[in-house]
Amino acid sequence: MDLLNLENPVFVTYAIAASLMVVKVMGQGWMTVHRMLKVGGGWASPEDLRTGLINKNPDPSQLNTNDYVDRSRRIHRNDLENIPAFWIAGLLFVLADPALLSAQLLLYGFVAVRLAHFLAYATKQSHEIRATFYTLGSLIVIYMALHMIWVTII
Amino acid sequence: MDLLNLENPVFVTYAIAASLMVVKVMGQGWMTVHRMLKVGGGWASPEDLRTGLINKNPDPSQLNTNDYVDRSRRIHRNDLENIPAFWIAGLLFVLADPALLSAQLLLYGFVAVRLAHFLAYATKQSHEIRATFYTLGSLIVIYMALHMIWVTII
Amino acid sequence: MDLLNLENPVFVTYAIAASLMVVKVMGQGWMTVHRMLKVGGGWASPEDLRTGLINKNPDPSQLNTNDYVDRSRRIHRNDLENIPAFWIAGLLFVLADPALLSAQLLLYGFVAVRLAHFLAYATKQSHEIRATFYTLGSLIVIYMALHMIWVTII
Repeated sequence: MDLLNLENPVFVTYAIAASLMVVKVMGQGWMTVHRMLKVGGGWASPEDLRTGLINKNPDPSQLNTNDYVDRSRRIHRNDLENIPAFWIAGLLFVLADPALLSAQLLLYGFVAVRLAHFLAYATKQSHEIRATFYTLGSLIVIYMALHMIWVTII
Repeated sequence: MDLLNLENPVFVTYAIAASLMVVKVMGQGWMTVHRMLKVGGGWASPEDLRTGLINKNPDPSQLNTNDYVDRSRRIHRNDLENIPAFWIAGLLFVLADPALLSAQLLLYGFVAVRLAHFLAYATKQSHEIRATFYTLGSLIVIYMALHMIWVTII
Repeated sequence: MDLLNLENPVFVTYAIAASLMVVKVMGQGWMTVHRMLKVGGGWASPEDLRTGLINKNPDPSQLNTNDYVDRSRRIHRNDLENIPAFWIAGLLFVLADPALLSAQLLLYGFVAVRLAHFLAYATKQSHEIRATFYTLGSLIVIYMALHMIWVTII
């Protein structure tokens, strides 16, 4: 039975959730670019101090860490610590052929809590709020991985 | 022929190995959290200095780099440099329909050497020991990717 | 219809592109290792200062950031911000059953622009050149993710 096709509503759920997370991760890179251009700083490499279209008035201080830019990089790093694991755990979850409702709750639930985590981080909410959304997302991914291990054992 | 199903023992091997690595990566995030809470420091963001359940006695030094916490972050970064590539190289390896024994050796072998790498890093073993386990894991992933390229050519 | 098999030329295209990117990411780790050994510095952990085969003449300055080594780490980080998303967006693109030509253009195109990004970064080209290749790769990944979302809606 081939489960990875668009006739399978569980796969469609996964495909939408995983694609939204792709756009999220790639968009985070663009948020960093936007912030670097806006403040004209937070650059990563010495050669970024050359005069050019991107940098019209180079200054060594542009290589300093800038919290406005670095915040976007930290969000990005947190994404990379969670979302690739979600992609593969979710794919394996689809291949374990779960009930549609549980797939929707877990997969769309992950998208929702990661969006909430992004908003909490970007708007500098207290650690407790950010940690709550992180925890929920992390538990969803761990649950899906353990579910696959469980299914292979029974 | 659909190879991604639980009737295929090569896929089951992959599903277990990939799921264990999901738990490993997500668990590394929790090890960082645990260490941050234990030492009450190594925080990442200025807003983490607000008083709250997580941080009852804020102090600016809590944002300094703390090796105990940063070690867990370095292990995590090393995981992210290796495990997502393993997930996709392993999936492609399954789709190349290899012999079960070679799949078991490579996929469970990767899990074993990454676990050994984690233990060597967490307990501050010499660079040579950590590097050996890193090398074995890296070679397994590269081998699986080259195998897929080879299979598509012949 | 099972799309993930070697009879499907779109899948073969994906398998080759994804495998090449696996080798690229893993190779970046080896470039960092090579550079650390060459300059005898840029080490990450305090225990790397122990005398051993890798480090025959330890010195505390070996833990300082070294741009030659750190450049390879920055390239690696940029890879991790782009390539895992490519792997999953590309896999979903294959499962959306696209025309072979568009799959070849997007998947091999991504490989080509990431190789160009690597060369631009490693040889310290101006930010504008590096940014151009980054942008093209990013747009390809975002396009494939939006394509999957679009296909599930219509």
